[in-house]
Amino acid sequence: MKKLINKLDDVEREMIEGLVKAAPEKLQKLAEGNIVVRAQKKKDHVALVSGGGSGHEPAHGGYVGTGMLDCAVAGAVFSSPPPDQIYEGIKAVATKNGVLCIVKNYTGDVLNFEMAIDMAKEEDIEADYVVVNDDVAVKDSLYTTGRRGVAGTVLVHKIAGAKAEEGASLAEVKAVAENVIKNVRSMGMAITPCTVPAAGKPGFTLADDEMEIGIGIHGEPGTHREKLSTANQIAQKLLDTILADIDCSGKEVILLVNGMGATPLMELYIINNFVQDYLKEKGVKIYDTQVGNYMTSIEMAGFSLTLLRLDDEMKRLYEAKADTLAWKK
Amino acid sequence: MKKLINKLDDVEREMIEGLVKAAPEKLQKLAEGNIVVRAQKKKDHVALVSGGGSGHEPAHGGYVGTGMLDCAVAGAVFSSPPPDQIYEGIKAVATKNGVLCIVKNYTGDVLNFEMAIDMAKEEDIEADYVVVNDDVAVKDSLYTTGRRGVAGTVLVHKIAGAKAEEGASLAEVKAVAENVIKNVRSMGMAITPCTVPAAGKPGFTLADDEMEIGIGIHGEPGTHREKLSTANQIAQKLLDTILADIDCSGKEVILLVNGMGATPLMELYIINNFVQDYLKEKGVKIYDTQVGNYMTSIEMAGFSLTLLRLDDEMKRLYEAKADTLAWKK
Repeated sequence: MKKLINKLDDVEREMIEGLVKAAPEKLQKLAEGNIVVRAQKKKDHVALVSGGGSGHEPAHGGYVGTGMLDCAVAGAVFSSPPPDQIYEGIKAVATKNGVLCIVKNYTGDVLNFEMAIDMAKEEDIEADYVVVNDDVAVKDSLYTTGRRGVAGTVLVHKIAGAKAEEGASLAEVKAVAENVIKNVRSMGMAITPCTVPAAGKPGFTLADDEMEIGIGIHGEPGTHREKLSTANQIAQKLLDTILADIDCSGKEVILLVNGMGATPLMELYIINNFVQDYLKEKGVKIYDTQVGNYMTSIEMAGFSLTLLRLDDEMKRLYEAKADTLAWKK
Repeated sequence: MKKLINKLDDVEREMIEGLVKAAPEKLQKLAEGNIVVRAQKKKDHVALVSGGGSGHEPAHGGYVGTGMLDCAVAGAVFSSPPPDQIYEGIKAVATKNGVLCIVKNYTGDVLNFEMAIDMAKEEDIEADYVVVNDDVAVKDSLYTTGRRGVAGTVLVHKIAGAKAEEGASLAEVKAVAENVIKNVRSMGMAITPCTVPAAGKPGFTLADDEMEIGIGIHGEPGTHREKLSTANQIAQKLLDTILADIDCSGKEVILLVNGMGATPLMELYIINNFVQDYLKEKGVKIYDTQVGNYMTSIEMAGFSLTLLRLDDEMKRLYEAKADTLAWKK
């Protein structure tokens, strides 16, 4: 394992401290736990909390700030944060109008967020949650019942975050988040695996001419292995699977070309070049495109594609101001 | 070589086309050559042109847009763009107030930009250039006379770009760019090399416990090889070398923690965590921090640190609006 780290036990804390120190005027770390909150707490609007295992940077701490999240709770690498940590996060940002948690669909995350929300309710904090399940690659897996939550989660942060910033009620913010979830789909692949620091070795291995299709974001293998093909062929395969699941013909979409951590931007742009043309050919109208590392698997090389089918409200909220480390609008 | 590409011959063109398609309302590719320009050409203010070999994405196409560059000319991977291409770029964006070229100090880049500027002058375009040489690792190398230009170049784009956007004269924009160059220093390292697509194999090899200190951004080896140490030890070594070259004690600086392409954000944040504390200990005041992939070497894993010692004018220009793919302010 070759990594730029210090002690294994310090990886998550040092990472969160380093993230907060990149924008100390905007972000704070709570004294206990790897919990990032806005430096200026919201007064009354609905607060948004997300989180999950570390290793997906910039998710989720990089999305804390104006127009997106109020709090991100980081567990150990690829491990759900414990309920008491999530509860501390909820408590730190809760307002009288309540808290919405945005949870990626992994069994551990869902359970722990549910427990944390129960703890919050006992303290008279109005709290609710949505579960993001955008990954069309697998139905059930070792880690999930139902589909996994992956890069589409960032678009839930963006659009629900804008709704909360407008002063909408908890029910309204939740409804918008659920609308995004209903309309967002993703699929990913990898050409190299990643290594959880504490494990010291990759979660799977691939031959020099192999790729893994349908990977998640926790170093787990995907649905199947194939001979490496061209960027265009791979992108088409992912898009065909997404478009078979959600009809985007004649619709406007947001496209996210997401790097898994070690994929050079050169390759993401080459992929985008094909995806743009292919979607146009399929009658899909691309309203906006984001290319970069938004939801990663440490140093996995590979990418995922995300399509969000828009309506007018989502479009308006997507355009609203956002000022976070990893998303500025 | 394991890469997400199509045909080797198409890498640069597809990459540039994919970059432009990520923001078609802001960017255009000229019909001939891998040249990115703003979709809305400046009317009269000084235009800024940069460029160099491909493989440094998001540099330089990702910095074309309001408040930064007007044009970026991309050569083949790690190869200077030919003079006639640079000339086409200059011609496409030139205004009556002239063009400033921002050139990284590599022998090929400097020669080709100089020739292009001569061609432009013959067509009565007022054109001038500055040479960025921020890398404190090496004095002369196979590729350069004098110091190399690396990640600090992005801060020249930002600050000179803001000055041009204000309507300053060519001489004034050049003076600000030179002031940034005088005050910016960088140094980098790598734990894995990168592979130029056409070469098919890495520029150097490293054992599992080795790192290369003082690397440039063209896959070339650095100044020397060492046993891999901790993130903090490595960061301190780079900072000590930078601070021995430029006195920042009691001064305000911009800090750039730059990933070389395949470095996970997790590691860049861990590095930032140390760098912030160490600079504070050394009496350096960090005015602002950027952590991410700004000037890369394809899929090299490693990082560079850049310090820009500020004055009031640079600070003001740094804060000005910028709207590009890779830098928003």
